[in-house]
Formats: sequence, C-alpha cells, structure tokens
Amino acid sequence: MTDKHQVVIIGGGFGGLTAAKAFRNADDVEITLVDRRNFHLFQPLLYQVATGGLSPANIAAPLRSIFRHRRNVRTVLGEVTDIDVANKQVILADTGSTLPYDTLIIATGAQHHYFGHNEWENLAPGLKTIEDATEIRRRILYAFEAAERETDPQKVREWLTFVVVGGGPTGVEMAGTVGEIAHYTLRNEFRSIDPASARVILIEGTDRVLPTFAPDLSRNAAWQLQKLGVEVLTQALVTDVQPFLVTYKQNDRTQQIATRSIIWSAGVQASPLGKLVAESTGASIDRSGRVIVQPDMSLAGHPELFVIGDLANYSHQDGKPLPGVAQVAMQQGRFVARNLLRKLRGESTEAQFVYRDLGTMATIGRAAAVAQIGKIHLTGFIGWLGWLFIHLMYIVEFQNRVLILLQWAWNYVTRNRAARLITGRSLPTLATITRAEAEKVPVAESLH
Amino acid sequence: MTDKHQVVIIGGGFGGLTAAKAFRNADDVEITLVDRRNFHLFQPLLYQVATGGLSPANIAAPLRSIFRHRRNVRTVLGEVTDIDVANKQVILADTGSTLPYDTLIIATGAQHHYFGHNEWENLAPGLKTIEDATEIRRRILYAFEAAERETDPQKVREWLTFVVVGGGPTGVEMAGTVGEIAHYTLRNEFRSIDPASARVILIEGTDRVLPTFAPDLSRNAAWQLQKLGVEVLTQALVTDVQPFLVTYKQNDRTQQIATRSIIWSAGVQASPLGKLVAESTGASIDRSGRVIVQPDMSLAGHPELFVIGDLANYSHQDGKPLPGVAQVAMQQGRFVARNLLRKLRGESTEAQFVYRDLGTMATIGRAAAVAQIGKIHLTGFIGWLGWLFIHLMYIVEFQNRVLILLQWAWNYVTRNRAARLITGRSLPTLATITRAEAEKVPVAESLH
Repeated sequence: MTDKHQVVIIGGGFGGLTAAKAFRNADDVEITLVDRRNFHLFQPLLYQVATGGLSPANIAAPLRSIFRHRRNVRTVLGEVTDIDVANKQVILADTGSTLPYDTLIIATGAQHHYFGHNEWENLAPGLKTIEDATEIRRRILYAFEAAERETDPQKVREWLTFVVVGGGPTGVEMAGTVGEIAHYTLRNEFRSIDPASARVILIEGTDRVLPTFAPDLSRNAAWQLQKLGVEVLTQALVTDVQPFLVTYKQNDRTQQIATRSIIWSAGVQASPLGKLVAESTGASIDRSGRVIVQPDMSLAGHPELFVIGDLANYSHQDGKPLPGVAQVAMQQGRFVARNLLRKLRGESTEAQFVYRDLGTMATIGRAAAVAQIGKIHLTGFIGWLGWLFIHLMYIVEFQNRVLILLQWAWNYVTRNRAARLITGRSLPTLATITRAEAEKVPVAESLH
Repeated sequence: MTDKHQVVIIGGGFGGLTAAKAFRNADDVEITLVDRRNFHLFQPLLYQVATGGLSPANIAAPLRSIFRHRRNVRTVLGEVTDIDVANKQVILADTGSTLPYDTLIIATGAQHHYFGHNEWENLAPGLKTIEDATEIRRRILYAFEAAERETDPQKVREWLTFVVVGGGPTGVEMAGTVGEIAHYTLRNEFRSIDPASARVILIEGTDRVLPTFAPDLSRNAAWQLQKLGVEVLTQALVTDVQPFLVTYKQNDRTQQIATRSIIWSAGVQASPLGKLVAESTGASIDRSGRVIVQPDMSLAGHPELFVIGDLANYSHQDGKPLPGVAQVAMQQGRFVARNLLRKLRGESTEAQFVYRDLGTMATIGRAAAVAQIGKIHLTGFIGWLGWLFIHLMYIVEFQNRVLILLQWAWNYVTRNRAARLITGRSLPTLATITRAEAEKVPVAESLH
C-alpha cells in the first residue's frame, strides 16, 4: 500500500467505468475497480443479443483490456458483500479479503423487480445480464422449433405467442425485434408452421408505450410496432404469471393469454448494496431501493462516500429523481472524479451535480426508432440512423464499433440474424417442459 | 407424407451437412436433417472460441438458415434415441415421435474419450461443443484472475500452470494459443502477477506432437510451440487426474504437475448411436465405437443405411481406417448422396468410396502453422496463411467468413482477443473451489 489517495470503485457499468476513466493523468490517486464480471457490458444493445443479432462479445469489453495502459488502475474480479464504513474498507465475498479506501464510489446499478412476485422470474426472465440475454434468445428460438414439431394446434399457438411485459425502451425494443424475426428473419425457414402467424403482445401499465418520451413519439412507436405485427395493450396490468399463462387486468376486466414465452421488462430495483450502505451510514433509500444522495452525490456525513448511477436517487435538480439511464451515470461518474481531483489539489469543488439531458431514444425493429433530443423529435429511419450513430459512439472498444456496424449493415441488407444459437441447456430439458414441470425449471440454472 | 424418396440424415456436422447439400436440384427426394443443435458448428475453429479470439456465432451457422431456400430439406431439432431398422424409422427422444425413411444417413460423429476414466471429465474438460469452449474459456481466464488476487505463492503457481493433454492438432492449437495469451495478449493487464510467468505444458503419449503429420512438421511444430513458451513432453502418458494435480509417466518415471487448469484433447470415441445401429444390424464396431462400413459406406445387408464421417470405420482404401477429419466426412457425404441419386435415376453407382487427401494442417499461435499438402510441407507464416485461407473457404456462411477475417486481422495487429468473457457460472462457484470441492463441480453444470 502506498501513501497515494486510494479510490475504490464498485461496479464497472457506465457510472463506474466513466469515473475510473476520468482519473486519467491523476498520478496522485490509485484506483481499484471491483466488478463481479470481467467485462463492461453495453446494456442498451443487450436486446440485440437476446434476439440473435449480435454476439455477447460484440457488446462487452474486458475491463482489464480497457485499463491495460492505465498503471494507476487496478482491476479486481470479485463480489462485494459488505462495506465497513467505520474502517473505510470494502469486503469481498469469496476470499474474505478487504480493500481499504480513502474514497469509495458505489455504482452497482439495478436489477429486475417483480413487485414482490419473485416466483415469476423463472417463467418471465428479465434482461440485465449476458446470461439473461442468451437465456431469452434460447427461449424465443426454441419456441419456433417446438412449434414446428408440435402437432396439437393449441400447443402450436401457445409456442407462437410471445408476451413482453413493460413498454419502456427495452420492452419496445424486444417486442419490435421479435415481431421482425417472426415476419422477416424466419421467412422460408420452416415447413410446418408459418412464423409470421406468431402473435407478439406488448403489455404496458400506463396509457402509452415509452411513457418517459413525448406523447407524439409514443404514438409513433406504437404505430411502428403495429406495422411489425405487435399488439400493443396499454393501461393493462399483469396480475399473475403461471406456466404458459399470463393474466392481466385492463379496464377492470381480467383477461388471459396462453403463451410459452414471456419476457419481463416491467420493473427494476436498485442493487442490494444500496440498502447495506444506507443502514451503515444512516442514509435513506426510496421505494426502489435507491440511495438518496446529497447534491454532490455523496452521502450525508460521509464526504468520502459517493453513490452514482441507477443506485442513486438524485432529486436536487427538479425535485424528481433522475432517470436510470447511461448518460446520468456517466455524467455523475465524471462529476465525482473531477470534484475529487480538485479537492486533492486544494482547488474549489462544484457543490451540485447538474444533469445535461442529451436526449433519449429507443429502436423499433430493423430500421425504425424514435429519438428525442431536446425539442427535436426524430422518428422512422432518420431516428434509427441517429440511434445507431449515438450507440456506436459510446461502445467502448473501437473494434466492437467496427464489428457491430458491419454486422448491422449485414443484418439490414439480408434481414438475417446470424447469432441464432440455442446454447447452454440440453435439448431434453427444454423439450420436456410441461405445465407441471415448468415451474421448477429455473432461469439459466447455474448462471446466477 | 408424399411418395417421394425419403432421406433422413442424422447429424448436421461436416458429413451430414454436405450430404444434405449434395441433394441440391433433386426434386425426387425429400430430406429431413435431424440434429440436437439448431446450428452447424465449424469445429476446427472451436479452439479460437475457447481462447477468446472468436465468438460462438462466428463459427456456427443456423441449419434452418442454410437450407431456407431448399424446399426439399426439412430441418428438425431433436435428439435421436433409437433407430427401428426393421420398420425403417428413426425415433426421437423428447416427443416419442418418429421419422420414417427410405434411406438413412447417420453422421453423428464422435465425442471425448477418457479411456475408462469418465471421472476425469469434470477436472479436464474436452473441446467438442460450444459449451465446452465457453467453459474452457472461463477456466483459462478465471485462472489468471484468481492468480492476481491470490497471496499464497504456491496457489499462484498452480493457477498459472496450464496442462494440455494430447498433442494432436487440437492440443497443439490450444497449447500454442494459451502460450500466446500468457506472453502477449495479457501483457500490461495485471498488477500483481506477470502472466508471462505462466507455464503451459503439452503432454503427448507418442514420441512427437502431431503424430499423424510428417516428422519434419512435428519437429517444426514443437519448435514453434517452444518459442511461445510451451513445454512439450513426449512419450508421456497421463495416469491420473486429481483436483489440482496431474500424474504422468515418462521413461518409466512417474511425475506430477500441480495445476488448476487441465484441458483434455487426448481421445475421442464414436457417438453411442454407432453401437445401437451395430446391434440392430449385426454390423461390427471397432475399439473406438466406430461402425465398420462396406466399400459404399452402407452397412452389410442394409443397402438403405449409411454411416459416414467420424462415426464410420472405413478401411477399404489402404487397410487403415481413414482419419476423423472434416474432409473425409464431407467427401463421404457427397459420395453417398451422389450414389443414391444415381440409383434412383436407374444409373450405375460407384462401388467404392475413394478418399482424396487434400492435406492436413494445424496452427500454432498467432501467425504460425504447419501444413502438409501431398509432398508440400509448409511452416511458419506461409503455413499460417494457407491454413487461414483453407479454413475461411470452408466456413459455411459468407458473413462469418468476412467477420472472422476482420476479427483475425484485428487480433493479428493488436494481439488482442476481444471475446474474453467469463460467463455462465456465478463467481462464488468459481472462486470457492477447493481441493475437496473441486471434484464435485461438474463441467458446465446444466449444459450437457
């Protein structure tokens, strides 16, 4: 251990990664970046992995590789179980070893949330990790395979019905892409079924899809989804998920959909580390488990402890918490790093973080998207080009940018999706799922 | 069911795929291609997935996609459990449904063989499937991560010792690439360990690596491996595999290597379907479980039943069985299809399959290979260019060819390997492996 200022960053997502990068040229600090995974994941494109358009490695960059030439950054693969706030050290699960810190930045993000119905997770997996994505890919592709072999028309119908719960960007992207796969990608590939006869149903609780966007963009997104054959249900709340059956309530009427493929994108909850930190520092957490932070992203009474990104509830800008998007996390990461360097150099610090909204966007199928950049609203192909440009700019590794662009160009021209692999679980396991057994089959058994 | 001649092909590897393709323009036959997986796998490049150089989707092509415009080919995702030779039908495991055939082509290939020590499989995984490859990738990458965190020097040494058992092409390719990763790819990425201090040991039972190649190429391969820091042990037989310990016998001396990463590429055994077919047709099988076939690849007394590729023992050419390589399987697939079409059209058939050896090659690290094409022996960079060209030519999908070439060019220039993801198993499971527990951890738990 040297006498340099020790910064520990937990989480290599958008927030943690950006913070670590922002300490460039800072010879007076040593940074330790801890993550459970050995790579940074570009989550906005995870739905492309879940639908066979991209490979996991296309949207992931090894953390070590990113920081190989940054001698002041040390990367640790490890799971944090606790934070000893009094003694300023982070405790790692597996070896019991500890990481002492002078400054700690917590950026562990969020995970799925089933509103108290964790038993739904096996039946309706969410999309947060690479393993989630390959599991969902497997389920979607296998559904078409099973339908092709099935002779009972009712079961064929169930296999060819896909329900996406939640109409935010991820839900819209998933529903749109599944619609596109059914109508275009799989055309000519089956002999017993017509993939285009598949039903894709998007269930949203509020009165429109993409509720955080401007109403005209929501309308446009719904229209583009319908062009891809997606049925959009709004003001519909899922009340129960059973094997092969989704129950929802719309206009006080309870209805059911028989389906064998359900994808969950309805809710997120902050990582459990938030609650832990709140308990040991006296900070408050909100309903979603996010930690209420000070205007400078620190915790009250703990100027050495920062929470950023999806794990933070920052409401000092207009009273509402900032949204859980990459830009917020990245800007917060840069803010915290910049302020710390100023402090260490005896310069004045900024008292309050200010989020600059660079716009939000969501894609719908092959070449359609909606984008909202300040007062500018883009839709259709133009929206998609903007979406593509922005996303490629923020992909961390140059190689991935090139490969994704090529893959995209290829997919665009051929409507093909090359990464359509059913992997990771044996066929009998998949095939013998019955109503009775389905409940017992966990999501990606060994993967969590 | 129509009155067209029904061909069922079991297995979508090199043999089965080539056979199905060879029925192009045959309107008088209907082909059903059954495979447990929904994709054709280009196995010669599997070692690149196991070492993070390529993504699984780069070397896999969805079978349906390959045959989308071939209306006489139907693809079935299913596992064959039995063949009812008397009633000419194939029985599928999961649904109990059957596929009737007029002609059956069995091309289910081979799997690992541990010489009666199946308990070694968990400790020393082999490399046959995508799941094997991502499991080995995980183990290799995790070994460096664990070494970085470990403080006990003995354990660091064990984590940084890699043993590859078997000096055939796969073993040579794995050992060479792990050597290259340690010496070049991971340079500058770690802070506590020097990856270049890793030991990579290749154990071969005969007196030279690549024993099926000419002796001068074996010598060259051994020399190229040593340049990458690989220790080559010949005439060494592995006698025991324990958690973290490999025992081998060389010159009547028993020796041991303490290691936490063992890769098995020493033996293969034909798929169990061979034994099943032999039992119901009276055909013989050899020690490796391969079915002894007639000169026209059929089984004695069953002119409607063909066995091709790694599952077949074909010794009619020079008394020795043909090697288990892609070219043999592909040429046999084309031969069987061509003969059947001739027979159906009342033309004369060829009585005997003749294998045309187009050469063999193996690669050693980044830009070195050995190739043997008739009397021409190529080594080093020239050998590697030849190797690259041939492999790219045989990759099934054009898109994959382009993406692999780009990825390769990138890897060549940067010595980077982008697909270095530790996925599919939770960190605590990996990290808490102890000597006592290691035996209980299965290879990719849910994956087989």
